[in-house]
Amino acid sequence: MFQKILIANRGEIAVRIIRACRELGITSVAVYSTADKDALHTQLADEAICIGKAAPADSYLNMERILSAAIASKAEAIHPGFGFLSENAKFAQMCEQCHIAFIGPSAEVIRRMGNKQEARNTMINAKVPVVPGTKEAVYTADYGLKLAEQIGFPVMIKAASGGGGKGMRISHSREDFTENFEVAQTESVNGFADDTMYIEKYIEDPRHIEFQILADKYGNVISLGERDCSIQRRHQKMVEESPSAALDDKLRAQMGEVAVRAAKAANYESAGTIEFLLDKNKKFYFMEMNTRIQVEHPVTEMVTGLDLIKEQIFIAAGEKLQWKQKDIHITGHAIECRLNAENPAKNFMPCPGKIDYLHLPGGNGVRIDSAIYTGYTIPPNYDSMIAKIIVYGKDRQTAIDKMRSALGEVNIDGITTNLDYQYDIITHPVFQSGNITTSFIENYFE
Amino acid sequence: MFQKILIANRGEIAVRIIRACRELGITSVAVYSTADKDALHTQLADEAICIGKAAPADSYLNMERILSAAIASKAEAIHPGFGFLSENAKFAQMCEQCHIAFIGPSAEVIRRMGNKQEARNTMINAKVPVVPGTKEAVYTADYGLKLAEQIGFPVMIKAASGGGGKGMRISHSREDFTENFEVAQTESVNGFADDTMYIEKYIEDPRHIEFQILADKYGNVISLGERDCSIQRRHQKMVEESPSAALDDKLRAQMGEVAVRAAKAANYESAGTIEFLLDKNKKFYFMEMNTRIQVEHPVTEMVTGLDLIKEQIFIAAGEKLQWKQKDIHITGHAIECRLNAENPAKNFMPCPGKIDYLHLPGGNGVRIDSAIYTGYTIPPNYDSMIAKIIVYGKDRQTAIDKMRSALGEVNIDGITTNLDYQYDIITHPVFQSGNITTSFIENYFE
Repeated sequence: MFQKILIANRGEIAVRIIRACRELGITSVAVYSTADKDALHTQLADEAICIGKAAPADSYLNMERILSAAIASKAEAIHPGFGFLSENAKFAQMCEQCHIAFIGPSAEVIRRMGNKQEARNTMINAKVPVVPGTKEAVYTADYGLKLAEQIGFPVMIKAASGGGGKGMRISHSREDFTENFEVAQTESVNGFADDTMYIEKYIEDPRHIEFQILADKYGNVISLGERDCSIQRRHQKMVEESPSAALDDKLRAQMGEVAVRAAKAANYESAGTIEFLLDKNKKFYFMEMNTRIQVEHPVTEMVTGLDLIKEQIFIAAGEKLQWKQKDIHITGHAIECRLNAENPAKNFMPCPGKIDYLHLPGGNGVRIDSAIYTGYTIPPNYDSMIAKIIVYGKDRQTAIDKMRSALGEVNIDGITTNLDYQYDIITHPVFQSGNITTSFIENYFE
Repeated sequence: MFQKILIANRGEIAVRIIRACRELGITSVAVYSTADKDALHTQLADEAICIGKAAPADSYLNMERILSAAIASKAEAIHPGFGFLSENAKFAQMCEQCHIAFIGPSAEVIRRMGNKQEARNTMINAKVPVVPGTKEAVYTADYGLKLAEQIGFPVMIKAASGGGGKGMRISHSREDFTENFEVAQTESVNGFADDTMYIEKYIEDPRHIEFQILADKYGNVISLGERDCSIQRRHQKMVEESPSAALDDKLRAQMGEVAVRAAKAANYESAGTIEFLLDKNKKFYFMEMNTRIQVEHPVTEMVTGLDLIKEQIFIAAGEKLQWKQKDIHITGHAIECRLNAENPAKNFMPCPGKIDYLHLPGGNGVRIDSAIYTGYTIPPNYDSMIAKIIVYGKDRQTAIDKMRSALGEVNIDGITTNLDYQYDIITHPVFQSGNITTSFIENYFE
């Protein structure tokens, strides 16, 4: 087992990983930017190394500085968390070259799954159902339009390298195709330096259902059930839950088997997620694979009892999975709400600043993953997510009631957050009915 | 179901009950003393009524004022929490007379189980094993000594009305008997206005093993497994866990059956606890029954998935238990540490005062039940327990590692606490071995 792990991240996920290290008796090394010298992850780690200025390129995205810190502190492994360098194949490869374990899949797998077209082709070959569309890369609107007409409108125009809703546009007819294609391609060029696009059938009003998998270095892969992440605003997840109200045991088993097959086809190791769209007829389609731990991993932890961060560490250290598929039982229901420092009334503009007073809920079935505290100043440089409130109850209604109570108890003075917005989602009759799709926010909140 | 419940308590247990009410959609009414106007339970409840001055007799022990508050606020039920009026038969009876549901057993059961000698006789009649001793009440040292010699030294001298370590003394031989008897009797007279004593065999180095039971109004009783509360300082519990390292499935089932029989013999309803001593030969003896929710109830909640406060509310409202014994499964391992505002270096002197800064741990498997916050001033009038840190892991070692990490993360500025003392217990090799008895603190920490 590793003696020392460097955490190449910040915020609640860095705290989450530091806690796992502490529990395992592994020395943790935090890296931090000058904006984060008072951050909780900086304080909580056994060692902390300042790696540069606030701008991500100078610190949390600066591969050379992070590797220097790992070498200087004699860390044997790096956990990248999510975001930043977590899905950067080059960084994973540099770690390998420095003989530092990258806690995640291999550089090759990250690269292949990161390219949407390659990922899609891998899945088609493994007989994993994909959204109808073309395998072909597209570079011009004219050619794209031809393909769109073959597939049939509406279509989704997607950047091969896109993510987080960037480089994605829906086209409903040939009239709006060219404009949408060009906007999406420009976003992709600006955001990812890649003009490769492709065209898929647009699935209307689907659910976003993703399967958590775990895979070791020896080809053992298990599924940990699904998360329903249909509550999204512009492709940004807001509320996640497990299990999904849309799946019965049969469909869960079937999708789980497909997810395991997908991970095997990708030659995957570590924790990963297979994202599917589920249409109204309960047909599901592979969307993409996330080759990292995800923000919403706690809901899976609550219903399975596993610790996904520890599992990632064990796998990276070369241990065999200690669980077989038959050992995994989904019990109860978990929901996560992301608390963001942003103003819903001003188009969700980020609202960093000082937290004058903070009270977060606790008690039976309430889990808080956060990195904030009374007196903490949220820097303006990073993602606006400041805390995750996760609840666990014996069934969906119990979990919803618990989340309503927990959100109602939150007290944050000094900054604006999406707390009331989340409360409105959780108490909305359509959310409570369980009949949610990715259009929920658009249909009821915009 | 009740529409409104008054909580006749303060601190973390009041907050715990308020949260259960919120989740169930029940309006909560807090009562508070003038010392508690800024307390969390006062802020968190839907309604809050000041019932008097800081002295318990003027507020939290003042039955008339609490009942007036219940009547004025139209509360249909009162939850007494633990301590204060929770085991006061007169108060339970007054509630009954006011047609307000007392969330707990009947006045008659409280009275009978509260008298140690009557409780013991009830158990003997139900063939529940009790500590060898006499059924006879003793009022003088001379007569007590005669009985002690019949039973054989060492013996335990116990006040019939005693509790929390008061009115209890061990006598090892006839030479020290009279002095110990008189000290114990004086404590009982001063503390409980009762000079009734009795004499029992003293079980050396036992474990304190207690069984949580749930009983409805229709004679259905189930056991929720045990808690090992052997880590005590002068009969005050400090660390509690479930399951106990000392029990195997067979003994657990056997003791669970006896606990259910004991509850039935007592004609019990609500949540209750049967406390046993377990000797080195794994023989167990009934010690007493607690006719209320206990401080350490969360460890049972963690390993069973039940919500004991909600169960108490359902039972008081006349609902049938929704669980049968076969539905109860103990999964994983939970540990609770009590965080007290006290100074271990000064004989555990209470240390109330202002909390200048507070950081409590969170994340996977960490539950906090507390009523404190940054800027809160702990009043000097009440119990020194300010927070409970509860952890849950897949096995005992995982839970211990989690508690070590969680305690290491606690940061409380401004007051002195037993935090380091608890950390030393959790990391002590004997505690880690699981081979603990009620002499642990005395043997290794004094």
